[in-house]
Amino acid sequence: MRVGIIGLGTVGGGVVKLLLRRSLEYQTLLGKPLEIVKVCSKDDPSHAEKLGLKKGIFTQDIGELMRLEPDILVEVVGGTFFFNEIRETLARGASVVTANKSMLAQKGTELMGGPGGERLYYEASCLGCIPVISVFEEGVRANRISAIRGIFNGTCNYILSEMANRGLSFGEALASAQKLGYAEADPTFDVEGIDASHKLSILASLAIGQRVPFDLVKIEGIRNVEPRDFAWAKAHDYSIKMLSMAEHHEDDGLFVGTFPAMVNRAHPLAHVGGSRNAISIFGDASGEIMLYGAGAGEMPTASAIVSDILSAAQGKTRLWSHRVFSGTNNFTSVNERRRFPFYVRFTTVDQTGTLVKLCEEFSSRNISLSQVHQDGSGEGRADLIFITHPNEYGLLKESVEAMAAKGLVISEPIILRILEA
Amino acid sequence: MRVGIIGLGTVGGGVVKLLLRRSLEYQTLLGKPLEIVKVCSKDDPSHAEKLGLKKGIFTQDIGELMRLEPDILVEVVGGTFFFNEIRETLARGASVVTANKSMLAQKGTELMGGPGGERLYYEASCLGCIPVISVFEEGVRANRISAIRGIFNGTCNYILSEMANRGLSFGEALASAQKLGYAEADPTFDVEGIDASHKLSILASLAIGQRVPFDLVKIEGIRNVEPRDFAWAKAHDYSIKMLSMAEHHEDDGLFVGTFPAMVNRAHPLAHVGGSRNAISIFGDASGEIMLYGAGAGEMPTASAIVSDILSAAQGKTRLWSHRVFSGTNNFTSVNERRRFPFYVRFTTVDQTGTLVKLCEEFSSRNISLSQVHQDGSGEGRADLIFITHPNEYGLLKESVEAMAAKGLVISEPIILRILEA
Repeated sequence: MRVGIIGLGTVGGGVVKLLLRRSLEYQTLLGKPLEIVKVCSKDDPSHAEKLGLKKGIFTQDIGELMRLEPDILVEVVGGTFFFNEIRETLARGASVVTANKSMLAQKGTELMGGPGGERLYYEASCLGCIPVISVFEEGVRANRISAIRGIFNGTCNYILSEMANRGLSFGEALASAQKLGYAEADPTFDVEGIDASHKLSILASLAIGQRVPFDLVKIEGIRNVEPRDFAWAKAHDYSIKMLSMAEHHEDDGLFVGTFPAMVNRAHPLAHVGGSRNAISIFGDASGEIMLYGAGAGEMPTASAIVSDILSAAQGKTRLWSHRVFSGTNNFTSVNERRRFPFYVRFTTVDQTGTLVKLCEEFSSRNISLSQVHQDGSGEGRADLIFITHPNEYGLLKESVEAMAAKGLVISEPIILRILEA
Repeated sequence: MRVGIIGLGTVGGGVVKLLLRRSLEYQTLLGKPLEIVKVCSKDDPSHAEKLGLKKGIFTQDIGELMRLEPDILVEVVGGTFFFNEIRETLARGASVVTANKSMLAQKGTELMGGPGGERLYYEASCLGCIPVISVFEEGVRANRISAIRGIFNGTCNYILSEMANRGLSFGEALASAQKLGYAEADPTFDVEGIDASHKLSILASLAIGQRVPFDLVKIEGIRNVEPRDFAWAKAHDYSIKMLSMAEHHEDDGLFVGTFPAMVNRAHPLAHVGGSRNAISIFGDASGEIMLYGAGAGEMPTASAIVSDILSAAQGKTRLWSHRVFSGTNNFTSVNERRRFPFYVRFTTVDQTGTLVKLCEEFSSRNISLSQVHQDGSGEGRADLIFITHPNEYGLLKESVEAMAAKGLVISEPIILRILEA
């Protein structure tokens, strides 16, 4: 099997290392050698030499690679620069392996759903080393899947874990994540939930068997979470986690969203720490299956890529992905109707009768409360935390806006969904 | 694809239900129908009718089924009754799907390693609905795997969870498990660790890439664990779990065992409750990947069987299993040399100087202690708990036997390995 690789950054380097280190084992498994015939990158050729690639394997000219017509094309550049090369490779009957989530989010339907889409392997695009795509293709394929829930962004999980364990503010935890290379200089993509939602749109599609477009995902970031929210969580046995979830109901209603949430510590997702990722899959026959592991990094991502190369070499096609992304969808979005218990925190004016007025706003919208905490006060202000029974987000938001309009709310309220075990 | 099924018990019934309920979806996915051509069972034909099978599909004659030469033969009987039928089916180029762990433990090398062994699908034999076999075949295939650790027996996990949560004795928790159908009338197979070790021998083989025979597994049961061990665990933030683990070292040393252990509650395995199963896989590139889900039951097992039927219909062969079970092994067993910290509890005579004598026995074998607790005393007896630094099991056992020989120990000691996070 002749392998061509586009991109020789962190992940590309990891892939080359694994392929060279294990070539004999892979050959024994497949009954034929896996040979790197060309690596194309804008980089300096010295990087390729350091990795132990033979002279003549490295090129800066994509045409040179494409003319060799590799059996398996590996694309680990990012962006949509090599869309045409990928499409051509699939169309001529060869396989493509990619880690490129951003390409899939923009061009997934054309690629996975297009000609040869069953030969597009993209395990590394979602949840790092966790083999979630092959589990959807094979391990749980007998099931109708009603829901997935998970932690899809390692940067957010690292930041929230640091805030929980070390009492840091969001800004401090972000700075620590940036220092360790877990967060980019511009962290928007991660902390606003966009990266997690790209993955969610792919994984929700595979779960429910219909394309779930990215712009349908309800997205909330983690910037507003504060140390006092962690203090409440700790005292009441919750963890604050950036959750991504999709639920497909019998009546074809679909809820799909990424948001910070209070997760009961009796729930296994509450214990997913550091930069790890996790996903729970709810099948009608299997029940809940949870997968957990490193969500990013050179070698964990290379592990997913090389496992895909071996699957491609064995002709284990991605029939389900091709079917889902070449099909249509017929669900109704119920993002606004999904009921959750909520945690609501804001600062109010500390005056006699304020609490009564706030409670009236909730009860006029039929939002019933299960707990009220006054979490410190002084200087004419009071910090209040309300825990509600399950209700619609829209009504809750409306209540809080009405309170603000009446001058009762001083700070921007934070509203977190609560996930019980 | 023509499917023949041998066995119509709980799991067989679940398989028929899923295949009938989803036939249209499976047909769309595969591009061809999956048809049940014959079901063979010793049962009354009325069960087949109740499941909605058409007249003429059911037979009590295995010859009638075999003469149809199904493309996929599903065996869900247990035992080795249908070994010949399975071997013949593989040999003639068709596929076999089985949940039969006892057959694989006894005949795995002949079947998986024999002619057509790459067409033997056996996901349902290990860890219920958790797709661990396909993860070893595909998702982590790029890795060299150094260790697996997990909870492989739902009955033990249920009993230990009940002892932990409700303060029950082993006998009471076993009776509760039997009442709910989680334990057999004769629970030996489960509570002595044999069932978990059958699975461990298969999964350890797939992990390290060499056959690990069942009789190499070091096995200890859970009968001796008492409520006071759970009291210590709770107070010190541990859970007592029935662990199965295999570790393959650089020098080809292999540790493989099933035993009750104190698991630090910061470790994710400590939170696997009820009758669930879990496995952590440590790959050199991926890092740790954990999978978790229902370990048994009608529909979870049927989920694994039908997913295998779909894989067989797509020709996703089990190349790795075939390679591992047709190969040999060249490791050295290091079961006795693997060092753990230990929890040791026993009752001693309550006399001046006893503790000194006990400590001398430990220190004469270079076993250093990290904690000593006297856990209640009276009537000339004292309950003692020692926590050791990492050491070899053999030396620890020797110390305790020397103490008994000197008349210092009254009760049978309990020795639990400690797994930190």
